[in-house]
Amino acid sequence: QGTRDHAPAQAALRDRLLSAVVSCFKRHGAAAIDTPALELRETLVGKYGEGTKLIYELQDQGGELLALRYDLTVPFARYLAMNKITNMKRYHIAKVYRRDNPATTRGRYREFYQCDFDIAGQFDPMIPDAECLKIVHEILSDLQLGDFVIKVNDRRILNGVFAVCGVPESKFIPACSTVDKLDKVPWEEVRSEMVGEKGLSPEAADHIGEYVQLHGGLDLIEQLLQDPKLSQNKLAKEGLGDMKLLFEYLTLFGITGKISFDLSLARGLDYYTGVIFEAVLLQQEKEHVEEPVSIGSVAGGGRYDGLVGMFDPKGRKVPCVGVSIGIERIFSILEQRLEASGEKLRTTETQVLVATPQKHLLAARLKLISELWDAGIKAEMLYKKDPKLLKQLQYCEDTGIPLAAIVGEQELADGVVKLRDVATREEVRM
Amino acid sequence: QGTRDHAPAQAALRDRLLSAVVSCFKRHGAAAIDTPALELRETLVGKYGEGTKLIYELQDQGGELLALRYDLTVPFARYLAMNKITNMKRYHIAKVYRRDNPATTRGRYREFYQCDFDIAGQFDPMIPDAECLKIVHEILSDLQLGDFVIKVNDRRILNGVFAVCGVPESKFIPACSTVDKLDKVPWEEVRSEMVGEKGLSPEAADHIGEYVQLHGGLDLIEQLLQDPKLSQNKLAKEGLGDMKLLFEYLTLFGITGKISFDLSLARGLDYYTGVIFEAVLLQQEKEHVEEPVSIGSVAGGGRYDGLVGMFDPKGRKVPCVGVSIGIERIFSILEQRLEASGEKLRTTETQVLVATPQKHLLAARLKLISELWDAGIKAEMLYKKDPKLLKQLQYCEDTGIPLAAIVGEQELADGVVKLRDVATREEVRM
Repeated sequence: QGTRDHAPAQAALRDRLLSAVVSCFKRHGAAAIDTPALELRETLVGKYGEGTKLIYELQDQGGELLALRYDLTVPFARYLAMNKITNMKRYHIAKVYRRDNPATTRGRYREFYQCDFDIAGQFDPMIPDAECLKIVHEILSDLQLGDFVIKVNDRRILNGVFAVCGVPESKFIPACSTVDKLDKVPWEEVRSEMVGEKGLSPEAADHIGEYVQLHGGLDLIEQLLQDPKLSQNKLAKEGLGDMKLLFEYLTLFGITGKISFDLSLARGLDYYTGVIFEAVLLQQEKEHVEEPVSIGSVAGGGRYDGLVGMFDPKGRKVPCVGVSIGIERIFSILEQRLEASGEKLRTTETQVLVATPQKHLLAARLKLISELWDAGIKAEMLYKKDPKLLKQLQYCEDTGIPLAAIVGEQELADGVVKLRDVATREEVRM
Repeated sequence: QGTRDHAPAQAALRDRLLSAVVSCFKRHGAAAIDTPALELRETLVGKYGEGTKLIYELQDQGGELLALRYDLTVPFARYLAMNKITNMKRYHIAKVYRRDNPATTRGRYREFYQCDFDIAGQFDPMIPDAECLKIVHEILSDLQLGDFVIKVNDRRILNGVFAVCGVPESKFIPACSTVDKLDKVPWEEVRSEMVGEKGLSPEAADHIGEYVQLHGGLDLIEQLLQDPKLSQNKLAKEGLGDMKLLFEYLTLFGITGKISFDLSLARGLDYYTGVIFEAVLLQQEKEHVEEPVSIGSVAGGGRYDGLVGMFDPKGRKVPCVGVSIGIERIFSILEQRLEASGEKLRTTETQVLVATPQKHLLAARLKLISELWDAGIKAEMLYKKDPKLLKQLQYCEDTGIPLAAIVGEQELADGVVKLRDVATREEVRM
């Protein structure tokens, strides 16, 4: 349940999509790494907030207690700490596992690919962060997925908001995961969860509501930097200062048109410490709708400066920022689009079919195809002793093989091969 | 335990290796598919002989009882049956999981890649089987792994041997998995396991021993076809007839020089029904050694005509034959070879580093690198506001970036960029 097989046409489409993502990651100078799908259970616990209950655990069959990885970020942090690496730009494309309620039509699976790009190291503020946003912008533009917006916020700003609204520090993380639901449910519901489940005072909740419903650009950053309460909070001030710097760099990249500083963005994971972001596709407006509607998140990420230190025996920190491309939702969109277009994706790359027009020529076919393979040519033949020529040509048409290399009795006698262009039916002897 | 991270240099080497394998599979017209790493536990049970106890099971967290795939063959058969596919040539490269005793120096891991190529469908005998052997031959030759031999046998011949030696049919599979150990332990040990653990009579064991120590080529096939007992056994006769046909096709492919018909080859898995094969690398002879020594299996496979039917509600059979390339052992060899050569594999593909010779030029760097990325050029910059030029050029040398695009105050004023060849130190303004 919640997993799926990829038939050849889907595997070919996915390959095309992943190639586009990898080529962007390589364009930005990232190296590939790979980590096991299995991690020690203790490595994963306590890193994912409410997601922890969705971790797949392996049965205790003796030996270590294992779990399937939940994302690629925690394994990356574990890898950095284990190998004492303080500086790295890497990408990783692999499957992760979550015992979530599957919603396969919307691209939500229990086994799904993540495509992560991360920059680890002590650098000047916001330079790597800006690059992560540039990458999201490049990938979503390259894939021509329609209009999109990249929301950005900062955990320090959110925590500052909570502080000035009178939320005790112990409730920052629970409050954060409640705010995170604002993109799916209306403020009223979020407010009632804050007051009910999370035990915030109604006044604090209302006060939070005034902030988290704000979104804008540089102007909003300036406004909040002047906010009498928020400007007094050290964390919020730091976050707003960095946000301003980030917008400066994004202006140089020429991508601020798609960026929205959005105080409702919280991200569900525990490990973020600074900038956070999430890209959503906007529905194409068919009727007169006031504002474009989001059809879901297709990329997300942020800064997690404390995670590596959690795996280091001496707690040494390695600041990190990274982005994860939500490839499954994008895949669903591309799949629907391909279906609508009626385009048929070739699932093989075969250049030539070795065929015979008469019986008793299997040996000739086997000899010829062997020569072609040895010369690096992609070649197939039907696995029958005496297939009909029509069947052989039909196979070319069905699978998109452009050429047939035909050996008949005459060709054998003359020491030639007849090469036929399947589409035009033109033939040359060679 | 028994898993490993791949650092960038290893990931790059693995990528190179897998590319060689994939390009061979594509040369033979295979399409890619993908299946989940998780399978229902019941799908895997009873397919792997003594391997079944090595299956990783997931904890029962509610819902289905799951396990990690043990190979790619059983999931392929499940996929064919589930989708009622009767005809397919596919490849699949993915990780599989076995709770085996790891021996990482010899390339034995608990999580490891398999690279499988299989042909499913009702075809004329031995044509797809011969192609599988040709593929093994091509891959091992392409990778220049030194001398190798591909052992072939047939389960029907083995079962025929067991039958004429007086083994009851119920003991064919246990006897088979004991014979399979002949490449690791001497005959005496195999014999005593047959008599002790497996309960065969000493006479039957001795009789089996006479057969399973034979190996050769077409001559041995002819000899066994004349064997007074074996030629009376229907199964053995069928197997020997097909083996003769196989050798005929392999002769046309020109690869019989590396093929050995070897009656000791049994293969451990339950699901094989016909031809089986296994490729082993031979140690380079340094001294005067009589016969080259095997350093382990690097590919294996065979025919499994009954497996798909086990997953079909009506038991409809789809004959299959396939090969699995043992990529981990090959990877270990290539890794050692790379280390010995001192060659340094580049782990990134960056073409140009955007650099500045003076301070306060971060904005110029960000603008230039953004233009390069948008033009599809692989470009990096250091994430510092004011890095020293020497540090920037050093980074190029360390990571193999061939060019530096330098913008200084003069270049900015002139509206040019200075492009420097890092190796030759030549510079052009453009």
